[in-house]
Amino acid sequence: MEYKASDIKGIVAEILENKKAVGGVDSLYFVGCGGSLGALYPAKIFMDNESLTYRCGWINSNEFVHATPKKFGKNSILCVACHGGDTPETVAAAKLGKEMGAAVIVLTWKDGSPILEHGDYIVKYTFDPSVDHLGNKIDHGADKVMCALMVAVELLAQTEGYDHYAEFYDGASKISGIIENAREMVKERAEAFAEEYADDEFIYTMGSGASYCSAYMENICIFMEMQWINGGTIHSGEYFHGPFEVTDADVPFVLQIAEGSTRELDERVLSFLKRYAKRYEVLDAREFGLAQIDASVVDYFNHSLFNNVYSVYNSRLADRRQHPLSTRRYMWKVQY
Amino acid sequence: MEYKASDIKGIVAEILENKKAVGGVDSLYFVGCGGSLGALYPAKIFMDNESLTYRCGWINSNEFVHATPKKFGKNSILCVACHGGDTPETVAAAKLGKEMGAAVIVLTWKDGSPILEHGDYIVKYTFDPSVDHLGNKIDHGADKVMCALMVAVELLAQTEGYDHYAEFYDGASKISGIIENAREMVKERAEAFAEEYADDEFIYTMGSGASYCSAYMENICIFMEMQWINGGTIHSGEYFHGPFEVTDADVPFVLQIAEGSTRELDERVLSFLKRYAKRYEVLDAREFGLAQIDASVVDYFNHSLFNNVYSVYNSRLADRRQHPLSTRRYMWKVQY
Repeated sequence: MEYKASDIKGIVAEILENKKAVGGVDSLYFVGCGGSLGALYPAKIFMDNESLTYRCGWINSNEFVHATPKKFGKNSILCVACHGGDTPETVAAAKLGKEMGAAVIVLTWKDGSPILEHGDYIVKYTFDPSVDHLGNKIDHGADKVMCALMVAVELLAQTEGYDHYAEFYDGASKISGIIENAREMVKERAEAFAEEYADDEFIYTMGSGASYCSAYMENICIFMEMQWINGGTIHSGEYFHGPFEVTDADVPFVLQIAEGSTRELDERVLSFLKRYAKRYEVLDAREFGLAQIDASVVDYFNHSLFNNVYSVYNSRLADRRQHPLSTRRYMWKVQY
Repeated sequence: MEYKASDIKGIVAEILENKKAVGGVDSLYFVGCGGSLGALYPAKIFMDNESLTYRCGWINSNEFVHATPKKFGKNSILCVACHGGDTPETVAAAKLGKEMGAAVIVLTWKDGSPILEHGDYIVKYTFDPSVDHLGNKIDHGADKVMCALMVAVELLAQTEGYDHYAEFYDGASKISGIIENAREMVKERAEAFAEEYADDEFIYTMGSGASYCSAYMENICIFMEMQWINGGTIHSGEYFHGPFEVTDADVPFVLQIAEGSTRELDERVLSFLKRYAKRYEVLDAREFGLAQIDASVVDYFNHSLFNNVYSVYNSRLADRRQHPLSTRRYMWKVQY
């Protein structure tokens, strides 16, 4: 049976009921590879920062299979993300989860994939396959990132309690509109970005807090994978402890400025870049209107916003560089 | 009062005794910035993988202060690392820890620093300030990385129990000798590395498992901070999910091959590099003799080994590039 985002509340309730027989649920593991791992990060940070009772892991699928935490087992929920459902390491992780008696929630998009047989609950998330998503009105409040967050929020709310449950779902109902608006806002600057950075050989991405991994995804999935542009992801708080020494007029940065508790970390980077760098692009969640979402939960919505704003930049960059986002030299082509 | 590595067992015992009055210890947070954060990573992975009962955080100091986990408080141990004892964000983190009632362990090297007043226990670790450490015989079994590991191992062993306690301390007694031997082994190849990569503008570092952050430290503290060479840290398991698309004959990689449970992830990268890359340097813990340490604990010793082998490479690279490791353009020079 297939589920969707709105079923997650019931899925978590059913897992909690079923797990009573073995002593309940005491841990939640988020597992995936690359962009699918990155998309689970806001949910990981949510659990780490909001929960008083649960252990929460966030682990690359192959590492999870080779170095499985001793804690993982029948009292765990395993939530894996696998877009096409056929990433071998993530299929192996889900299979291991079932064998070890965990409740396995699979977040996926494609139908009929190999991972489906290894999940107790298959949740199909929303996704817009067009390259820049402009003009397409899918509900981003039910995408992969949000589904993972809902697993975390529901687990917390249905057991130890979560004071900002209403604010969270209010945010989930608003995020799609905020994203669509922000994407319209950046259309022109995305053109300018593509023009400016078309010939760059590397670009850094930067972010903090629960939105660190939208910077990570832009770095590894878009720049490295889809554009073959080198780079690295720098945590805004770590920047001043090593990385900032490479800052110079010709070194390009894309900086996310989050709305919420770690905003000050990102703003500090911006003031440094204003003094010592010349080539940087800023994505500011406040400018994009993310403060419409309540301050108690806004941290966890930055990732979705940035991730979906990047796609406008990405399609322009790919066009300008005449390097389609679907171009690969190894993936789908060689064995590895 | 100042302590050293061999006092950590007693420190943890005292904390556990003192915390009985408030309900015991239920969480351990490792907090620091840059290289000091990286050095705490093996201890974080130890807790995540071995413990059944403790929550463990690993967080950049400024993020910790701005987005403090709800769980953190009087039932927590906060272990911060701060080499010079004057990193403002880490001083602030330790101060917050005391204010919130946590037991604060400060790992540091310098005397008389501002952080000392914010720690309940000041542990002075061993450190060799010479640039390549060759010929200097400090006990690496009592350095920053090992001190953090001991905090984790002792907390586990003295409460829920740890089956491989004896093997861990046997490893701690062997690591210094293994390191010294490995550093002698790489002297010539470090010269060759310096010659080959002297003019490169970026270099990737790669690793997995508990040793991921020795790759991170080499990337941010040495290449970026001390040599102004751009780059990024790639997790060996993540490499095949995006990053590998940049692989080409001219793209340089430094790959750590760990001894232990995630070795297969690193070896998989190596076989790919052998096919599609030409410029890569391999640090293989097995070749360096790390298998002398018992398989049950060896994962946690890779970081110390790699970190201390890198220093031989680093001094050669700095010499060859005529860019001393102490050169900075922003740190110690401008306000930020």
